[in-house]
Amino acid sequence: MKILYYKEIKALVKELDLIPLIKEGFIAYSEGRSVVPPVGELNFDDPPGDVHIKYGYIIAEEFYVIKIASGFFNNDKLGIPNGQGMMLLFKQETGQCEAILLDDAYLTDVRTAIAGAICADLFAIEVNCIGILGTGLQARMQVQYLKDITPCRQVLVWGRNTEKMEIYQTDMAKDGFKVDFSSSPQDVAKGCNLIISTTASSEPLLTGRDILPGTHITAMGSDTITKQELGADILKISDLVIADSIAQCRERGEIFHGLKSGSIREDEIVELGSILNGSKTGRVTADQITVSDLTGVAVQDIQIAAAVYKSYEESNK
Amino acid sequence: MKILYYKEIKALVKELDLIPLIKEGFIAYSEGRSVVPPVGELNFDDPPGDVHIKYGYIIAEEFYVIKIASGFFNNDKLGIPNGQGMMLLFKQETGQCEAILLDDAYLTDVRTAIAGAICADLFAIEVNCIGILGTGLQARMQVQYLKDITPCRQVLVWGRNTEKMEIYQTDMAKDGFKVDFSSSPQDVAKGCNLIISTTASSEPLLTGRDILPGTHITAMGSDTITKQELGADILKISDLVIADSIAQCRERGEIFHGLKSGSIREDEIVELGSILNGSKTGRVTADQITVSDLTGVAVQDIQIAAAVYKSYEESNK
Repeated sequence: MKILYYKEIKALVKELDLIPLIKEGFIAYSEGRSVVPPVGELNFDDPPGDVHIKYGYIIAEEFYVIKIASGFFNNDKLGIPNGQGMMLLFKQETGQCEAILLDDAYLTDVRTAIAGAICADLFAIEVNCIGILGTGLQARMQVQYLKDITPCRQVLVWGRNTEKMEIYQTDMAKDGFKVDFSSSPQDVAKGCNLIISTTASSEPLLTGRDILPGTHITAMGSDTITKQELGADILKISDLVIADSIAQCRERGEIFHGLKSGSIREDEIVELGSILNGSKTGRVTADQITVSDLTGVAVQDIQIAAAVYKSYEESNK
Repeated sequence: MKILYYKEIKALVKELDLIPLIKEGFIAYSEGRSVVPPVGELNFDDPPGDVHIKYGYIIAEEFYVIKIASGFFNNDKLGIPNGQGMMLLFKQETGQCEAILLDDAYLTDVRTAIAGAICADLFAIEVNCIGILGTGLQARMQVQYLKDITPCRQVLVWGRNTEKMEIYQTDMAKDGFKVDFSSSPQDVAKGCNLIISTTASSEPLLTGRDILPGTHITAMGSDTITKQELGADILKISDLVIADSIAQCRERGEIFHGLKSGSIREDEIVELGSILNGSKTGRVTADQITVSDLTGVAVQDIQIAAAVYKSYEESNK
């Protein structure tokens, strides 16, 4: 059994073309060629934290994967990253553990950013400005992974904390992005036709009347029942609502709130993999409003973990 | 983060008095002082295998634990143990991984045998002969962990395979047990007032008319929907039916079959921790028939993993 550490993993990821692999994962998922049980969850009150266990396998491939990822929101104060985690690869044939990827949740961040990039590529029209809600790690990575998707380098960011917006601006400049500040989420929606919401908000930051025609929103901040970034009426006025996993979005994220409030029916939701394999239609006209809700699916973890480990094996033959 | 391997873990376990700790775990569970989500499960068809993810924590203790244990039943043919697995300890305060116990499912075997010993101690009357169904690892460990519970060293074993019974006899003789063979599960039931069933049978091996007054049965082989060792009518004629976890036994094991067939009602089942803490009554008279159904609860994993790791820390101060 091999143990890979963060630095090694990061170096391996740099050399990999992960977008096609994550796409394949979504397709396998939507085509029923994967086994992905409901997300395991542990919650802690004091200090507050939540742990997600995502696991499963693509049928007839080599490994099954168990991913543990947590967010403990007071860690910052202790100088420890909020996100913690690891991915475990086991042989489908024997159950033997093949590798432990001690990635400190890095691979979760990467596969989440890649899902965002896939959505922007499929659903955004020519990007005039990238709108970002939030100033955390995904606010950075979602933008970084757009580099190959759009030539746009203009970002309009909104965050609750001005100091964090300033740090964000400085950091993103190093990556070649020009970041302007916004005084409200509404301003972001007015100025950008691609909006990525990356916060842990439990109150909607945007409502239907804020959204201009032609906008695509990727909502990736909410992955629990309590978190919500978009008013449910946004789903109502959208021409296309995409779920990374319909089964998961029934239970968590923006679509969960939309279904609960009756703003959307389940049969109106399209799964990402079904658009990727061509069996369902994506955006049709430039003035449509589209929303993709990303809750994070185990197939992403399965694909990225297997790719990193296989690449490690290749380079150590 | 520390990684402990099988040999180290085995040596640490030898020095630990685990019975009181496992008892405490069951009590915390039955008193609602633990968080134990439903068992995560992955099944494989070809080759056949099942993976269980058991996880949770005791409130206000140091760690939360995720345990992965699998059984791939063709591994034997490849010279690989059927059971595979590990236990992961994470800090409740930050989510950081503190230790990985690469125990190859050994700790699962130990905590399962200990649960059996706890039940024998509580529910068996003076043991005339230990009856064992099955010749595998638990058929050995359940008996070995009875050494401090009963002076009885007489075992009557039944297994489908005569050769395996012979190996079992030889192996157990080294531990001081005199093993006789039985031609059927019924013969075991006739000759023993303590019966431990440890098989992966999907057909009942015993029915109600086989069981003599004063018998205690610990059924630990069935931990899925499909496995069943006892006819559901045994639960009907029993004076006391004990579940390690009522919530889990609703979904799997002997009690699941008993509830489904109407042989027993849920309000007739008593949880092990509730007898251990004195809030419920155990065996009352020597002629009662008692059955305990062990599906394996995450609190056992939590307690044994924490104990092993703390003992490691102590000895490496």
